[in-house]
Amino acid sequence: MIVVLKDNPDQKQLENLVAWLKSMGLGIHMSEGQSSTIMGLIGDTSSVDMDLINALDIVETVKRVQEPYKNVNRKFHPEDTVVEIVPGVSIGGGNFQVIAGPCSVESEEQVCEVAEEVKKAGAGLYRGGAFKPRTSPYAFQGMRDEGIKLLLEAKEHSGLPIVTEVMDISHLPLFENVDVIQVGARNMQNFELLKELGHIDKPILLKRGLSSTLQELLMSAEYIMAGGNERIILCERGIRTFETATRNTLDLAAVPLLKTMTHLPIVVDPSHATGIAHLVKPMAIAATAAGADGLMIEVHNNPAAALCDGAQSLTPTAFADVMKCVDAVRPVAYKG
Amino acid sequence: MIVVLKDNPDQKQLENLVAWLKSMGLGIHMSEGQSSTIMGLIGDTSSVDMDLINALDIVETVKRVQEPYKNVNRKFHPEDTVVEIVPGVSIGGGNFQVIAGPCSVESEEQVCEVAEEVKKAGAGLYRGGAFKPRTSPYAFQGMRDEGIKLLLEAKEHSGLPIVTEVMDISHLPLFENVDVIQVGARNMQNFELLKELGHIDKPILLKRGLSSTLQELLMSAEYIMAGGNERIILCERGIRTFETATRNTLDLAAVPLLKTMTHLPIVVDPSHATGIAHLVKPMAIAATAAGADGLMIEVHNNPAAALCDGAQSLTPTAFADVMKCVDAVRPVAYKG
Amino acid sequence: MIVVLKDNPDQKQLENLVAWLKSMGLGIHMSEGQSSTIMGLIGDTSSVDMDLINALDIVETVKRVQEPYKNVNRKFHPEDTVVEIVPGVSIGGGNFQVIAGPCSVESEEQVCEVAEEVKKAGAGLYRGGAFKPRTSPYAFQGMRDEGIKLLLEAKEHSGLPIVTEVMDISHLPLFENVDVIQVGARNMQNFELLKELGHIDKPILLKRGLSSTLQELLMSAEYIMAGGNERIILCERGIRTFETATRNTLDLAAVPLLKTMTHLPIVVDPSHATGIAHLVKPMAIAATAAGADGLMIEVHNNPAAALCDGAQSLTPTAFADVMKCVDAVRPVAYKG
Amino acid sequence: MIVVLKDNPDQKQLENLVAWLKSMGLGIHMSEGQSSTIMGLIGDTSSVDMDLINALDIVETVKRVQEPYKNVNRKFHPEDTVVEIVPGVSIGGGNFQVIAGPCSVESEEQVCEVAEEVKKAGAGLYRGGAFKPRTSPYAFQGMRDEGIKLLLEAKEHSGLPIVTEVMDISHLPLFENVDVIQVGARNMQNFELLKELGHIDKPILLKRGLSSTLQELLMSAEYIMAGGNERIILCERGIRTFETATRNTLDLAAVPLLKTMTHLPIVVDPSHATGIAHLVKPMAIAATAAGADGLMIEVHNNPAAALCDGAQSLTPTAFADVMKCVDAVRPVAYKG
Repeated sequence: MIVVLKDNPDQKQLENLVAWLKSMGLGIHMSEGQSSTIMGLIGDTSSVDMDLINALDIVETVKRVQEPYKNVNRKFHPEDTVVEIVPGVSIGGGNFQVIAGPCSVESEEQVCEVAEEVKKAGAGLYRGGAFKPRTSPYAFQGMRDEGIKLLLEAKEHSGLPIVTEVMDISHLPLFENVDVIQVGARNMQNFELLKELGHIDKPILLKRGLSSTLQELLMSAEYIMAGGNERIILCERGIRTFETATRNTLDLAAVPLLKTMTHLPIVVDPSHATGIAHLVKPMAIAATAAGADGLMIEVHNNPAAALCDGAQSLTPTAFADVMKCVDAVRPVAYKG
Repeated sequence: MIVVLKDNPDQKQLENLVAWLKSMGLGIHMSEGQSSTIMGLIGDTSSVDMDLINALDIVETVKRVQEPYKNVNRKFHPEDTVVEIVPGVSIGGGNFQVIAGPCSVESEEQVCEVAEEVKKAGAGLYRGGAFKPRTSPYAFQGMRDEGIKLLLEAKEHSGLPIVTEVMDISHLPLFENVDVIQVGARNMQNFELLKELGHIDKPILLKRGLSSTLQELLMSAEYIMAGGNERIILCERGIRTFETATRNTLDLAAVPLLKTMTHLPIVVDPSHATGIAHLVKPMAIAATAAGADGLMIEVHNNPAAALCDGAQSLTPTAFADVMKCVDAVRPVAYKG
Repeated sequence: MIVVLKDNPDQKQLENLVAWLKSMGLGIHMSEGQSSTIMGLIGDTSSVDMDLINALDIVETVKRVQEPYKNVNRKFHPEDTVVEIVPGVSIGGGNFQVIAGPCSVESEEQVCEVAEEVKKAGAGLYRGGAFKPRTSPYAFQGMRDEGIKLLLEAKEHSGLPIVTEVMDISHLPLFENVDVIQVGARNMQNFELLKELGHIDKPILLKRGLSSTLQELLMSAEYIMAGGNERIILCERGIRTFETATRNTLDLAAVPLLKTMTHLPIVVDPSHATGIAHLVKPMAIAATAAGADGLMIEVHNNPAAALCDGAQSLTPTAFADVMKCVDAVRPVAYKG
Repeated sequence: MIVVLKDNPDQKQLENLVAWLKSMGLGIHMSEGQSSTIMGLIGDTSSVDMDLINALDIVETVKRVQEPYKNVNRKFHPEDTVVEIVPGVSIGGGNFQVIAGPCSVESEEQVCEVAEEVKKAGAGLYRGGAFKPRTSPYAFQGMRDEGIKLLLEAKEHSGLPIVTEVMDISHLPLFENVDVIQVGARNMQNFELLKELGHIDKPILLKRGLSSTLQELLMSAEYIMAGGNERIILCERGIRTFETATRNTLDLAAVPLLKTMTHLPIVVDPSHATGIAHLVKPMAIAATAAGADGLMIEVHNNPAAALCDGAQSLTPTAFADVMKCVDAVRPVAYKG
């Protein structure tokens, strides 16, 4: 970390700063220039709060040289992490997986039918929402515990491991037989939840927040990994921008960029990113081409009638077509 | 709600849509134009998912005419809500309050000293963070239960009611003697937490999320109010934009605009919004002038040494100066 | 266009509004609902200012049903436009072109050498900046007229048609032998320039503005097309968001979405979008996979030494590698 | 400027970089740390392209210590600039001015009537649009030369100096008798226009671009000032964000922050920033309280009928009320 001091800094404040930095075990290398003094901080600066130093009267600017994340940093772990979901189903390091299923679990019939269909089309994991984060308190909040039970039936029925979203620590006991626990975009910085998931022996699918930087996404993954859980899958699902033609703006450059920053696998969710069913196919193809380790796609057996999650859903037939296109692009996708 | 259909909509899908809308108790008024058919939905559309209808093949566009929020809507509650914190300390409807105190609780000495100072300067409520949401798992996470105890000491010591942030439902028992429970920006859409706070008999200070629209802020307040808790204070604290010169972009137009949308009181937090100590004073003045019902300001007894939260903090002396300026502007502030 | 009126609108104002709308040749269809009156405007509403109606006291909300763009609208021109640059070099409707070359023209040697290299690798057009829009008045502003001359030499030398950016109407005479005139992101809403380009018999490459919506991009193309010039190529080059890890956020979903909105060809510029050389390759592959009609890529013969435009440039060797990957992905790219 | 190199940088590239920096007259101070080497650049780095250095393979990161702007920098010109418009009408350094008038010039009657009204209410300058930048080619583009003539009549009639927007260099001869030339938000980075305005002996009102940072705004002012024209007035008019409840997000913290960065006067345009007539008053009050040197407000004599610019306009009566409130807040406004 580099701290550039203002001209003629108050000496008392400078001493306080130096003393405080030393108390955190950091070495300090002072370099006096013509019009400004630069302090180079040597040692582990990951717990140093940059904003705070930046706010001091005597400081002109602060710049991090080392990344604030450690466990998730590719520098210290050059090989791709391969997350094993269940024996035979892995993601990362060349293992590509498509996670598919309905937005919300609605009925036993729906959940089992769709599972069968997506499995047939080539999906490796099954998704479905039991707990649903909804902007409105008057909107359907999901089938909750009952929904988890139906997902487990679908799992047994289809043999596909299941992924579903947790919304609160207190619900975790219900997730005992779930294969992958999803943290939604709105919970990416629910730090108490992240800490708890650090102590769990299950893969975590961590979605990027609506207005989170890639570094913040990695810091949230670092929360989980610092607790001991190393099986994390990152998910790019679009960010909020001024453009309203799509629900969010899918940031596909995040895929190859994250791959240089971290060793964790990255999947892309074109359904939520765009919010428009006919954009799911081109964006699934593009995400695969950009080097994603997998996709997360909403599939519903009757988009026109089942209005509860239709907006971004494909029919099983349309999904099977997407899978064919994705398979075709995989051999020529970016490999890094 | 108005639904504009595409030309020559599929009749089967149209019937499905109409049946589904009727099943929710809505009346439908069809109006056939030259090149498009418009459906007007009559009745309570607050639980209707617009995105979903918008995603249907046969739909060109959907537009809400009624707001999706009810309890917090000024239309149905024209008078300002006055939230009584403790007898004699109210906010809203002409009652203006300044909430001041350190970002983090650090020690008994600090917490009591600052409380005394801000009270002397005219603050009506005392704030301090016991549970701290931090981007990095390696940063100080707050004194937690111990911090709450110290705040309660400061309350007894100074007589000021206290405001502090909750980060998880499971911590709520610790908040029994806290006067106002704060929901931080990152938890604005932690819907399970909001539901729980709807059943609590305490004022809630609800901060706007980093990338939340005003409508989303009101929908989160609606979650709390739908549960029965009507004592909600909204807080504008800056939104995330492309501009990096300030930590966030303070959206002051939100104050008079929210006042037309809702009857709830609105406070402004210039400390977090700007992240720069010397901008707290002008923005406190401007927020007051814009008609805010109160302010939330960080005050620390030793910004230079106590680095743990210095970035946006004022000294007690600087805070007293801000209070004088704010008092001077109040008589000429916008009244609506 | 649909205008939703407020309850009990002022009758005088309503009459004014109706009279004004009729004066523009619009038919009006009134539909009185329970709590609001809806006016449907029939006829050509493309010149009606929505914001303005929206601002009237008596108006609750306005919603456009028809798009405000006509000539560029795919609805009225279902076939893909094929823009012929020179005989044998076309773009759109299945014709894919890569535009490559240095950011700035620097010397005869550079400009001819790079032209030869990119031609060998498969580029169909040659780009180079003679007039350079630079944030700082102290930065290199391009070789200007001299730069245009060097580009024309490179054209003669290599046989590749050339693309270069115009910054002001007064420079247009210098562009007489240029094959494609580029409008940069900062000039996308330089309406006087757009009008002028509407009267020119040359293809225009129109880049999306840093904070322009897709609809605004199309409206700018409409300016050119309304003047009679139908040879327009759109260019997605990243938008400005809160994320600072890349220079801009490449909005690849814009490619398939624009294809449904307009018949014009769309190219993608991964160099400017990301600002990071090692992201050019994955994003070139992804853009091709998403169905782009072409790419625009910066290539420099000595990125390490020639610092004037190195940031996002590839070497000719790296570019040849990108071309191979792009060629491999084309057969399996999204076709719509 | 500080350049942090990567570990074990390629020596040939490092030599190239050093040679290039020296060729620009910069001194270099190398400081070798444990895991990285830091180069401090000494001298005038304002013409050094940071992005470019940042993009080199051997560079980890670059950080500017000095601001890239010089003439507009308050560091080198600590006193407030006072821009004299005409004798007796100045702005900056304690001189506060309100610029008022219609969005578009429509007729002699309108333009003279409004001028008289705003003068009576206390406006010091008169504004009106003759050339109108419109998103749609089908929308009213302004009365152009005829509009300028009408404004000059209003000037003679009322005695108020006039402000109007230029859209292209070629129109400048028409502006000979205009008092202040406005550069609109969409032209803030029309660098050829800015250069031309640097050679003109008239005050320039420079509006912030929709997605421009404060530093970019200052760099555009630097373009004008580098040409010799020192009479520049900056204008904050809202930035584009994800929030759609207001047309733009008014960034009021920009006012006190710009005052620390530059000596130039700053006015605020609450009409365009919010796009909502009833927000003009509170935001005019708040902007004044935040320390703005003036305001720019749209006033129209018949907002309900004259639809051409109604959205954000006040009636003369409403404007007179705003003036009273602004006058009341001035004595207690932030002074820096």
